[in-house]
Amino acid sequence: MDDLVTFGETMLRFSPPADERIETADEYTVRAAGAESNVAVTAQRLGLDATWTSKLPDSPVARRVAGELRSHGVTVDVVWSDGGRQGTFYLETGDRPRGNTVIYDRTDAAVTTATPAELPVARIENAAGFHTTGITPALSDTLSETTAALLAAAQEAGTTTSFDCNYRSKLWSPAEARDTLAGLLDDVDVFTVAERDARKVFDMSGESTEIATELAETFGLEVAVLTRGTDPALAVSGDAVYEQPTFESTDAHPVGTGDSFVGGFLSQYLDGHDVPDALEYAAATAAFKRTVPGDIAVVSPEEVETVIDGGAAGISR
Amino acid sequence: MDDLVTFGETMLRFSPPADERIETADEYTVRAAGAESNVAVTAQRLGLDATWTSKLPDSPVARRVAGELRSHGVTVDVVWSDGGRQGTFYLETGDRPRGNTVIYDRTDAAVTTATPAELPVARIENAAGFHTTGITPALSDTLSETTAALLAAAQEAGTTTSFDCNYRSKLWSPAEARDTLAGLLDDVDVFTVAERDARKVFDMSGESTEIATELAETFGLEVAVLTRGTDPALAVSGDAVYEQPTFESTDAHPVGTGDSFVGGFLSQYLDGHDVPDALEYAAATAAFKRTVPGDIAVVSPEEVETVIDGGAAGISR
Amino acid sequence: MDDLVTFGETMLRFSPPADERIETADEYTVRAAGAESNVAVTAQRLGLDATWTSKLPDSPVARRVAGELRSHGVTVDVVWSDGGRQGTFYLETGDRPRGNTVIYDRTDAAVTTATPAELPVARIENAAGFHTTGITPALSDTLSETTAALLAAAQEAGTTTSFDCNYRSKLWSPAEARDTLAGLLDDVDVFTVAERDARKVFDMSGESTEIATELAETFGLEVAVLTRGTDPALAVSGDAVYEQPTFESTDAHPVGTGDSFVGGFLSQYLDGHDVPDALEYAAATAAFKRTVPGDIAVVSPEEVETVIDGGAAGISR
Amino acid sequence: MDDLVTFGETMLRFSPPADERIETADEYTVRAAGAESNVAVTAQRLGLDATWTSKLPDSPVARRVAGELRSHGVTVDVVWSDGGRQGTFYLETGDRPRGNTVIYDRTDAAVTTATPAELPVARIENAAGFHTTGITPALSDTLSETTAALLAAAQEAGTTTSFDCNYRSKLWSPAEARDTLAGLLDDVDVFTVAERDARKVFDMSGESTEIATELAETFGLEVAVLTRGTDPALAVSGDAVYEQPTFESTDAHPVGTGDSFVGGFLSQYLDGHDVPDALEYAAATAAFKRTVPGDIAVVSPEEVETVIDGGAAGISR
Amino acid sequence: MDDLVTFGETMLRFSPPADERIETADEYTVRAAGAESNVAVTAQRLGLDATWTSKLPDSPVARRVAGELRSHGVTVDVVWSDGGRQGTFYLETGDRPRGNTVIYDRTDAAVTTATPAELPVARIENAAGFHTTGITPALSDTLSETTAALLAAAQEAGTTTSFDCNYRSKLWSPAEARDTLAGLLDDVDVFTVAERDARKVFDMSGESTEIATELAETFGLEVAVLTRGTDPALAVSGDAVYEQPTFESTDAHPVGTGDSFVGGFLSQYLDGHDVPDALEYAAATAAFKRTVPGDIAVVSPEEVETVIDGGAAGISR
Amino acid sequence: MDDLVTFGETMLRFSPPADERIETADEYTVRAAGAESNVAVTAQRLGLDATWTSKLPDSPVARRVAGELRSHGVTVDVVWSDGGRQGTFYLETGDRPRGNTVIYDRTDAAVTTATPAELPVARIENAAGFHTTGITPALSDTLSETTAALLAAAQEAGTTTSFDCNYRSKLWSPAEARDTLAGLLDDVDVFTVAERDARKVFDMSGESTEIATELAETFGLEVAVLTRGTDPALAVSGDAVYEQPTFESTDAHPVGTGDSFVGGFLSQYLDGHDVPDALEYAAATAAFKRTVPGDIAVVSPEEVETVIDGGAAGISR
Repeated sequence: MDDLVTFGETMLRFSPPADERIETADEYTVRAAGAESNVAVTAQRLGLDATWTSKLPDSPVARRVAGELRSHGVTVDVVWSDGGRQGTFYLETGDRPRGNTVIYDRTDAAVTTATPAELPVARIENAAGFHTTGITPALSDTLSETTAALLAAAQEAGTTTSFDCNYRSKLWSPAEARDTLAGLLDDVDVFTVAERDARKVFDMSGESTEIATELAETFGLEVAVLTRGTDPALAVSGDAVYEQPTFESTDAHPVGTGDSFVGGFLSQYLDGHDVPDALEYAAATAAFKRTVPGDIAVVSPEEVETVIDGGAAGISR
Repeated sequence: MDDLVTFGETMLRFSPPADERIETADEYTVRAAGAESNVAVTAQRLGLDATWTSKLPDSPVARRVAGELRSHGVTVDVVWSDGGRQGTFYLETGDRPRGNTVIYDRTDAAVTTATPAELPVARIENAAGFHTTGITPALSDTLSETTAALLAAAQEAGTTTSFDCNYRSKLWSPAEARDTLAGLLDDVDVFTVAERDARKVFDMSGESTEIATELAETFGLEVAVLTRGTDPALAVSGDAVYEQPTFESTDAHPVGTGDSFVGGFLSQYLDGHDVPDALEYAAATAAFKRTVPGDIAVVSPEEVETVIDGGAAGISR
Repeated sequence: MDDLVTFGETMLRFSPPADERIETADEYTVRAAGAESNVAVTAQRLGLDATWTSKLPDSPVARRVAGELRSHGVTVDVVWSDGGRQGTFYLETGDRPRGNTVIYDRTDAAVTTATPAELPVARIENAAGFHTTGITPALSDTLSETTAALLAAAQEAGTTTSFDCNYRSKLWSPAEARDTLAGLLDDVDVFTVAERDARKVFDMSGESTEIATELAETFGLEVAVLTRGTDPALAVSGDAVYEQPTFESTDAHPVGTGDSFVGGFLSQYLDGHDVPDALEYAAATAAFKRTVPGDIAVVSPEEVETVIDGGAAGISR
Repeated sequence: MDDLVTFGETMLRFSPPADERIETADEYTVRAAGAESNVAVTAQRLGLDATWTSKLPDSPVARRVAGELRSHGVTVDVVWSDGGRQGTFYLETGDRPRGNTVIYDRTDAAVTTATPAELPVARIENAAGFHTTGITPALSDTLSETTAALLAAAQEAGTTTSFDCNYRSKLWSPAEARDTLAGLLDDVDVFTVAERDARKVFDMSGESTEIATELAETFGLEVAVLTRGTDPALAVSGDAVYEQPTFESTDAHPVGTGDSFVGGFLSQYLDGHDVPDALEYAAATAAFKRTVPGDIAVVSPEEVETVIDGGAAGISR
Repeated sequence: MDDLVTFGETMLRFSPPADERIETADEYTVRAAGAESNVAVTAQRLGLDATWTSKLPDSPVARRVAGELRSHGVTVDVVWSDGGRQGTFYLETGDRPRGNTVIYDRTDAAVTTATPAELPVARIENAAGFHTTGITPALSDTLSETTAALLAAAQEAGTTTSFDCNYRSKLWSPAEARDTLAGLLDDVDVFTVAERDARKVFDMSGESTEIATELAETFGLEVAVLTRGTDPALAVSGDAVYEQPTFESTDAHPVGTGDSFVGGFLSQYLDGHDVPDALEYAAATAAFKRTVPGDIAVVSPEEVETVIDGGAAGISR
Repeated sequence: MDDLVTFGETMLRFSPPADERIETADEYTVRAAGAESNVAVTAQRLGLDATWTSKLPDSPVARRVAGELRSHGVTVDVVWSDGGRQGTFYLETGDRPRGNTVIYDRTDAAVTTATPAELPVARIENAAGFHTTGITPALSDTLSETTAALLAAAQEAGTTTSFDCNYRSKLWSPAEARDTLAGLLDDVDVFTVAERDARKVFDMSGESTEIATELAETFGLEVAVLTRGTDPALAVSGDAVYEQPTFESTDAHPVGTGDSFVGGFLSQYLDGHDVPDALEYAAATAAFKRTVPGDIAVVSPEEVETVIDGGAAGISR
């Protein structure tokens, strides 16, 4: 039995060397990158048995994605498809004032046609937790329906369901997102959302605590988690409100920070720890992630605990 | 006025390092690659004023393609499109018995919607030569019509039209190719085709000379050129038959050999040289190309002439 | 239940860039390399469910080894040890007359203290096949005893046992090898050995067939397989003698050829195919491996079958 | 007709990898670098039709320079010379307290013999703008005369002339520079100079505004632009004085900041914008440049405008 | 006659690319790294004739170490051994909160068996200075005895002896270090120690000056040098106390800072300069080192003097 | 006392990656390369104490050259000059029919002004052997005189003088070479020349043996060595004629083959071995060199002996 199953698209990410530009580089580094597989990897590395499910074209390009995820110990249980593309994106990182550039090339990805009939639904029903994000239903109508069906099946089976809002303005408008997500969140237990997305997508205002509380109540959530950049994260669970400050960290590799936060949270929450412990672990994992290139938190439990204990000091030798 | 305008898709090519596999590599080298732009680059480097026209999405990824072509001196006169993808492909080269692997990812490329109305038709009509290949009409119905229209306009304007069969089994069947090409070749002056494709696509048999002659007669060609791997190339022009042996060369970098052959041919033919001279130049350019990584023949007229004169001997210092 | 469990040491391999020397290089490529894990990877990639077991120090260096093996789908079921080193070696490849240089640095590897009590013996007993090689008992007295115990347990449980002689002159003398192997081979079903090693270690002479037959009879083997460089491989099974010519291939990346041969053989033999089919698959896998850098055969069943069918011709596009 | 023609030397720049030293590196990255071609590239990328003219030796090394400039869309209209070197320099960048090291190797560059008779003077006379810098006349007596002749011809023809002081202490003394520049500036319309160079070369003192005003009056300038490091840039034009604060940016890649400032300025000023707009564009382009390795501002108009609007915030996806 | 002989282990250091992790990297950069050879290189580069002595296995891997040291001009006078390993370590650097990871793999290094009988003792006796560190006696009992014998021989011969505490918690406990070092320091003239190590190893407390004074008195030191991170270094010599502030510098490459400090100090002190001058040179060398990747201070006297004079300003060109 | 002193220019060599072109590469590998330092390195590695003398500009670029030579154990005893360039060249290697391209950029190198007054003439007079080549006098009139003076001094002092013709058509004509060399060879003991150069420069004809004999007699040589590509080398010494077949080898890295031949020869001849032994060693060293990138034979005596004994067979492990 899995501790966690995640579902979503994993793309191949192309990046020019440090500081270089997409337009002039002659080499791109290649990495697997997807919100839901990032969460699976983080959770697996931090102690859970995690499985990632999706739909991939049967090609070496997609096998590269599966291989990289497997190297972290994650079980890859995907549909291998004859049609459909391997989604890709180009990511360029630049210092201020340039910022980061993301160019998606994910149209017609194989995953956009994935249906519950071909996915390992029983695996999800037997797992302790199931996780997906707001990116998945935004990718196609089929995926919107599939996401709803998987969440419903998981909920019905007693699997703890986790959902990260992950609003992407290049995929849909706030209004479209609100409509779809509203229909999904009734089947969600743990909902994580960046405060700025909560305000934009759900058209909310007021104090952070009010927002988290309203989300929890509206959708009957077990836990509502609000991330707030470098401000403390906030969770509302039942009557309790918890705050967790962020740990000081570099901003060298911010992509994937949110996913490692969720992976860190679930690694504890699904293992029976309470919300404050899970939040602390989440924040420490996210801080550590930012030191690691790529989307994936290459991290161990000992390293997360060192962050919690105050971080590495000098060189241990 | 241009000496040569070429029209077609240029993709971004991703390749793992030498001998490595797509499935396990962490870095891909990135290069511009397209049959028609390869011809433009070769012709430009060998003395013509060449322009490449196409349709590209307005993104850094596509600007990378344009920039690489420009670096060889080619004029890039393209439609910058809001929609459509930058086509890509993955190329892995392997020694025997592995061979080369090509995985196209060119669906929905911006160029597939290019119409004569947006392309620089006047530029083609004013050029000495116009070149495209059998890949272009295979990419979409729109492109099939556009190709026909451009060839017709060029022919009407007195521009010498050149066409390379370039049959791609991953794009269409021989029968589909035959149907489409038959409708185009009436507007073609110089037709280049690999003998094995001539047999497959046009369902021809018999001696090489018979095939070339039949092609020339059927389609009213000025010149019919048959390439035959390491066997001598063959041209039929009017009553004359010419044979041009290949020059000895490595097979280290075969991709683009055919395009550099055509580029070498046109660089001479459009400059007023006769068919045998153009054929010799074509064969020497093709031999030289095979020493150069990537799709593009980074070559100079002096280097082609050195090949014709017997190749470099030892180290000149 | 596993189709195959393999047991042995996997080292980290350091190699300078192509043609460069260990003594002057500033960068080494790093890869996992071990005879038994190579076999597990090959078998897994060709369709079996394969597990590799061993003992590794609990460090990022050893986790790198485990991660690379997992990326190919192999299950890694190892003892994580507080003491002992991660074995390494330096490999430099050179053209003629330089040849390849191997410098082992594997003393005190964690695996040298592995005992049956800590290894997953039940997993081996429940598997369809178990494989190890002559390297393992050569590494320490403890490993010599452990190897004997595992083979005996597997044999007792009805697991098909496979053993590759893999004589290493840097680890022991022919006489030492003979003494130890003689005690192990009674529990072996499938024995693979290079003919030159059979002659040296077992002090045998005569025709190839005589050698294979004598090995089969002396040790009561189900199958005795003799590899003979570029000459055909030979197998004796019961009264039958089978010959399998090698497939033409590059000699660019010879390290790991033997392991991929065994992996290819077992992928078929343990799946119920007869000896001639398994031999043919073995030879094709080995030929393909030689095109791939590193110790590991990054290969698919389709690619093996293409080799059997005559190899890739030109570029498929 | 060109919007801008620039004239000067472009060198090949050799740099060790990040933080490494010239003395110990085994690889140098190679880039085209020249003050005047940097300006041409920036202006071209920001919307002008720009041409760079110079004199290069007819060799692959110099063709590499031309190709890189062409890749940005610049027209390269140079004299290809049988004699003379391709100038090079070694650039090493180091964090504090190391700083950057520049070692010129530009003696006897082909450009040092360039005369108006062989350069495209008509092109300059027909262009909207002409730009060169104080480096050019410092390179040889011939170039000093040629620079004077080109400026005079441009001025005579009504071409707006732009000149960047670019004082180089490794090429000449302040007194030598003063003597030569004084003779040139009468034919200059837009003069850009770092304040510290203005003080050193022209032996000026007083407030920044006084310096700019004095320069404008002494040489009859249309615009005198003073750059002042991270302090606001200053322009005097007629009676007006304009100040333009710098935009916050990294100092990761400072080489070429001044050239991109001028390129940004000219892209607007020659397009009819007024001085304050051109200054703002200049400052934003310079800030953006500092995020890009190499001498060249790989930038688009949209990116400059984003800097003006406050810079990129987070990751747009 | 040498100005300085140093004795100790030099390892091969493996590092993943910037920010990458040991566990996931496919390439490691390779460098020679050892406290005593670092000092020899720094001293040689800053003007002394320096020799490094040790014991190395006779293999290309160890010859790589010797070659890199020789490239800086150091004389390598080592015992080439048939047995024993080339010690290695893995170093990964990470931004906050990750920090740096060091994994030693130095067990059974050839140097651990080095005895005075095989080492060039006469060379040490004839040198102006001899230097080793607290790492060396921690590596083996044999090395502990050898270190004592070499220091005694040097002291007896009138060679100035220098010793850097270099406490390594992965090699021994504070108590073990104290016992051994107490027996060595009577033969030491110049003792350098980080204040935090002085407190830990020698169980000292009180003000910095008290500690340095007590060390000087207890062990009869000529000079006791206390380094204190970014706080000023402190030296006690006879009755005098000297303070030397650190020079501002990056913390990009901290490994080897202490060794370059000692190398800078000895380059002056052994050349007859007084303690304050030597301290200033030491601090400037250490600051410069932190800009250079690897363990070794690739630096020249001019560069040290530039740091003393306030550091490089902008780009000199 | 040195066993061998060599004198000549060492350049920095820039090469694009394998198969790539100078014109399009973005990175060049950097190596020290000079005929006379190549010989010094080879001789040092094969057992002699070798010193290389020359004149270098005092810059990091030239220190890089010195450092690389020192890393092989060679003593670098050069004049550090305030003026003059560090000579460089660009080397591109290509498969057939492209061949190799060499572009010298060595004008005004510091060494071209080297005079006996500043060079270590006493070192040469005290050495067992002195070696230079025909490149050196071709570089400048000063060097022509200096070469003559050094050879005369060495001869006078009883040092064995060695000279490699090394005719370079890019430096001078055969007639110029003949005039200069004729004046030098009277002071030469061991003269090595490629047969094709002997014919071209000295306008000789006839059988190989006749040529060698005539050279020996004309110039009073101790040994005249004729290399003949893949044909056996030939030596005439007194009345004896010796032939030494080449050892089979790759032609992957031919640059430096001749220098390693001479280095191998001198390593034996100056050590007292007779001509046939020295020739055999020379041929084996040359064959080995061709497997190593760069100009320098990174080789050990054991490796040369393995080549003599038939080359490496398979992988020793």
